[in-house]
Amino acid sequence: TSRKEGDKFNILSGFFEGKTTGTPLCATIENKDTKSKDYASVKTAMRPGHSDYSGYVKYSGYNDYRGSGHFSGRITAPLLFAGTIAMQILEKYKGVIIGTRIKSIYNINDDSEMKMSSHELNELKKKNFPVLSDLQGILMEQEILKAKENGDSVGGITETFILGVSAGYGEPFFDSVETKLSHMIFSIPAVKGIEFGEGFKVTEMKGSAANDQYYMDDGKILAHSNNNGGILGGITNGMPIVFRTAIKPTPSISKTQNTVDISTMTNKTIQVEGRHDPCIVPRAVPVIEGAAALVVLDLMLEREGEVWNLMK
Amino acid sequence: TSRKEGDKFNILSGFFEGKTTGTPLCATIENKDTKSKDYASVKTAMRPGHSDYSGYVKYSGYNDYRGSGHFSGRITAPLLFAGTIAMQILEKYKGVIIGTRIKSIYNINDDSEMKMSSHELNELKKKNFPVLSDLQGILMEQEILKAKENGDSVGGITETFILGVSAGYGEPFFDSVETKLSHMIFSIPAVKGIEFGEGFKVTEMKGSAANDQYYMDDGKILAHSNNNGGILGGITNGMPIVFRTAIKPTPSISKTQNTVDISTMTNKTIQVEGRHDPCIVPRAVPVIEGAAALVVLDLMLEREGEVWNLMK
Amino acid sequence: TSRKEGDKFNILSGFFEGKTTGTPLCATIENKDTKSKDYASVKTAMRPGHSDYSGYVKYSGYNDYRGSGHFSGRITAPLLFAGTIAMQILEKYKGVIIGTRIKSIYNINDDSEMKMSSHELNELKKKNFPVLSDLQGILMEQEILKAKENGDSVGGITETFILGVSAGYGEPFFDSVETKLSHMIFSIPAVKGIEFGEGFKVTEMKGSAANDQYYMDDGKILAHSNNNGGILGGITNGMPIVFRTAIKPTPSISKTQNTVDISTMTNKTIQVEGRHDPCIVPRAVPVIEGAAALVVLDLMLEREGEVWNLMK
Amino acid sequence: TSRKEGDKFNILSGFFEGKTTGTPLCATIENKDTKSKDYASVKTAMRPGHSDYSGYVKYSGYNDYRGSGHFSGRITAPLLFAGTIAMQILEKYKGVIIGTRIKSIYNINDDSEMKMSSHELNELKKKNFPVLSDLQGILMEQEILKAKENGDSVGGITETFILGVSAGYGEPFFDSVETKLSHMIFSIPAVKGIEFGEGFKVTEMKGSAANDQYYMDDGKILAHSNNNGGILGGITNGMPIVFRTAIKPTPSISKTQNTVDISTMTNKTIQVEGRHDPCIVPRAVPVIEGAAALVVLDLMLEREGEVWNLMK
Repeated sequence: TSRKEGDKFNILSGFFEGKTTGTPLCATIENKDTKSKDYASVKTAMRPGHSDYSGYVKYSGYNDYRGSGHFSGRITAPLLFAGTIAMQILEKYKGVIIGTRIKSIYNINDDSEMKMSSHELNELKKKNFPVLSDLQGILMEQEILKAKENGDSVGGITETFILGVSAGYGEPFFDSVETKLSHMIFSIPAVKGIEFGEGFKVTEMKGSAANDQYYMDDGKILAHSNNNGGILGGITNGMPIVFRTAIKPTPSISKTQNTVDISTMTNKTIQVEGRHDPCIVPRAVPVIEGAAALVVLDLMLEREGEVWNLMK
Repeated sequence: TSRKEGDKFNILSGFFEGKTTGTPLCATIENKDTKSKDYASVKTAMRPGHSDYSGYVKYSGYNDYRGSGHFSGRITAPLLFAGTIAMQILEKYKGVIIGTRIKSIYNINDDSEMKMSSHELNELKKKNFPVLSDLQGILMEQEILKAKENGDSVGGITETFILGVSAGYGEPFFDSVETKLSHMIFSIPAVKGIEFGEGFKVTEMKGSAANDQYYMDDGKILAHSNNNGGILGGITNGMPIVFRTAIKPTPSISKTQNTVDISTMTNKTIQVEGRHDPCIVPRAVPVIEGAAALVVLDLMLEREGEVWNLMK
Repeated sequence: TSRKEGDKFNILSGFFEGKTTGTPLCATIENKDTKSKDYASVKTAMRPGHSDYSGYVKYSGYNDYRGSGHFSGRITAPLLFAGTIAMQILEKYKGVIIGTRIKSIYNINDDSEMKMSSHELNELKKKNFPVLSDLQGILMEQEILKAKENGDSVGGITETFILGVSAGYGEPFFDSVETKLSHMIFSIPAVKGIEFGEGFKVTEMKGSAANDQYYMDDGKILAHSNNNGGILGGITNGMPIVFRTAIKPTPSISKTQNTVDISTMTNKTIQVEGRHDPCIVPRAVPVIEGAAALVVLDLMLEREGEVWNLMK
Repeated sequence: TSRKEGDKFNILSGFFEGKTTGTPLCATIENKDTKSKDYASVKTAMRPGHSDYSGYVKYSGYNDYRGSGHFSGRITAPLLFAGTIAMQILEKYKGVIIGTRIKSIYNINDDSEMKMSSHELNELKKKNFPVLSDLQGILMEQEILKAKENGDSVGGITETFILGVSAGYGEPFFDSVETKLSHMIFSIPAVKGIEFGEGFKVTEMKGSAANDQYYMDDGKILAHSNNNGGILGGITNGMPIVFRTAIKPTPSISKTQNTVDISTMTNKTIQVEGRHDPCIVPRAVPVIEGAAALVVLDLMLEREGEVWNLMK
């Protein structure tokens, strides 16, 4: 799709005659944008909103500060690589489709309701800027441009849909579907919140409204609503899995900010130089989808084993 | 505290001469409230909002349906037991204090701002119904009673504060503080969302406002704001760890609901009988604190080893 | 079988209407033999061959020294409980049979060759003292009695056979079948060595003799020999899994031994009092089988998922 | 040392200004010896003693059969790379020294007793063919050459010594030092047995001889013997950690062997072509040392945390 990163990957192992072999798949993705000298100025000035200070303490000052080092958003490229393969497996062998829409950027919301068909999801996946309401999408993109012009940044909320997962995957308690998905999604830099189904809004509903009441539909058990986002007791109930992810504004901004110098332990101001993405939400979309695919594939491997695809 | 459950625990191992031994601590908590016959009617009628259906599929019908079986909220008692011990260790050896306030019940919000001192946190922990604004607390409790009278239920949002964790705990990416806390908190039944710092609201801020700018305070690095909830790049930055948890309305309600009978695969209605807690939020408060304590203690053991407390 | 321990277990959860439910199976086994006063004398005198000293340092003196505390061989009772259930599942759903013979006690060896049929294995499992040569078995038992009379102890070697595991289970490298079995078997106290197939003796063979050459047998791939003990590249090859376990002499002996007093840091002598088993090898047999069953069941769950038994 | 492999590694991340950064250290080692065409003949003829057949079943025929694919002994190069770094850390910060001697090749044994000083260990590490008795070493090398001339192969036993680990590392039961070391050592291809201290021979000793009796030596607790190889109850007791590893003869031999063709399911003979190492024991020595170093470093990180080296 047009959303694909331009990164070239180089497979080193685990791929043979056009297929994965089952043994570890190893690939490298070269980072071609680095200019080490760009980052010399940030060696001791801790950029606000970044991991500079927490990473400095964690690694006792031995961390590689160039381009945020291991904390860089570019480290999501391998996650995207792995996730894309997981998504291909899920789609081919299980008919599972994962799609994500941008629900909001800054204060612009797309309140359109998802119809939740595989057709609608596939249409969404074709878009460069995956919103349901293209009008709201234009307003969002304007907001991003405006932030850029101001040397500032914006964040947003994405909404992810996973169709085709039947009931019975996951575990109660410590390995619930929510625990695994949240663990994975919070692994993506800049994520600050996750909610399933109606999430925080479900707290404003009465139980009688929040409960998803079941009915028989042509021999299949369905629910009239999906406030629980397809997960009950940590286990899938056959309804679409739905979750929303909060992504904070890019911390790299060119506006002057207050901070401290870690070497002198004094106050100073900082202006983060270089080309910065004023909004990482569109880039986060395929990463979130891929990360979710890895979790769903794991759930299926646990329940059906490594040979499930051969049993079809 | 007055919030303590009435449950009696029975320590079987790992405790000797008033101290834990270091080997596995095992305790049992007997469930005295069970009346197996109460649940016979729910054997095949899948209660909406509960794990009855997802659990039935997961365990191929072999699950113990009495009192929700392993999915019961009562299974949080061992979590509370373990968490309370973790909290004692953290407080005694590290000066870490963990407290939680009820932020909202149904549509009643307590918008009071936490001052975030250990004193204020300890005052909060003394309360039966831990809110900052006692007036809002009364309104919340009225809402709970009203739900009960109507055979309905309500949920709410809690806000947890962890004071005293210095910078440098956690890992980038897959074992970030957010991943570990969210993994643990979503293990608690009825949790449907979690957010750190400003969470979903941070998406409505510009980067220049969202970034927590640093300054020197008497030789210590602090930040003017805490929109990131004490975590940057997955690692603590020394500011208080703050997260909010969305808890759905109790699924057990006595109102008539539509559902299906799993044995006949037909539609039917259900009225869930028995005494049901119309709101589990107050009960969830100490469980969330204990669960968070387990995560924080783990973070400290990873960074400082099992012998850290001896080094003091 | 007559080998069963007299321990009574009490199932607390995970068992309903005569079947496991799929959720955690929890049982307790009460230790009825303890007399706390017996062990007061060993509080500071470190028994040679025991974990008293290493455990004292590990747990900074807080360890429960009574009856060896958590290091007691009695802690294998839960392993036996879990392993026995795993063995039942393997036998019923997979036709896997696991048996162990005592190969040697002290310097008495049973050099009889195992024919490796399920019949022979089942005959072995009926025996109180599971040897192939009953004559050698009598000599072994005499050696045990002699050790007891002298206030001494003996160890021995067991040989375990796992029949019915087809080819393809396990992983190369870090999760090979050998890594998993050895990890589990060394979890049993007093085990000091493990070898697969011909093990240490394979080092005295030429490659041409050590390699297990394949042939077709009625459409099935078999090998003329089994020097690799059913595992190649960490993965089962369909031949019986065979391993031998070295079990040291019981460290508890009534003979006078030199040791140190940890409180005074001075030399002293010790005589370990109480009834002690002069040889734990016969007791270790079912524990080793059960531990192996847990590993094999795990291998099958990984490969075939939690629903494999339903697919039959 | 002269034992070093000629492999060139290329560090991709985690290394900055001459030091590791604390974030993942990634390096690649290119395999320059491959000639893909060499292996075409082994595509369907299952080499005896190799993982060809078990891997074929495991991966349903999708495995990369060239050069044994992921099962190749060359995959130990990354283990050696990682282990060498672990060894440097252990030596520099903890004074831990790990050395391995070749104890036997085929039927040639070196019965010399190790004096177990860091001096002797360092002398051993300087040798190309690390034996204590150089005379026996010459005989071993002759045996290797003889096997090569005959198109055959030999294996052997190594003995590893870890000096400088104090008491208190490890866990009882499932994470004992023996479980962790055996898990790691069996991850190395061709290993078929491991034993700690006197290992299998301890079964031929009485308890009174096997128990390592303690005494005070200048304020330090030592033992007169080390039959338990420095580990009691799964935890180090401060004596040197000693284990022996059984390595099978190289399965690649040029002698004609019987086998089956997996595509036709018929018997056939096979002659494995190419240059093959008639004995991998000398190559295994540094891999075993490095693998052991990784385990020991892990044990120290668990007990003392990631910041232990900063506390010195």
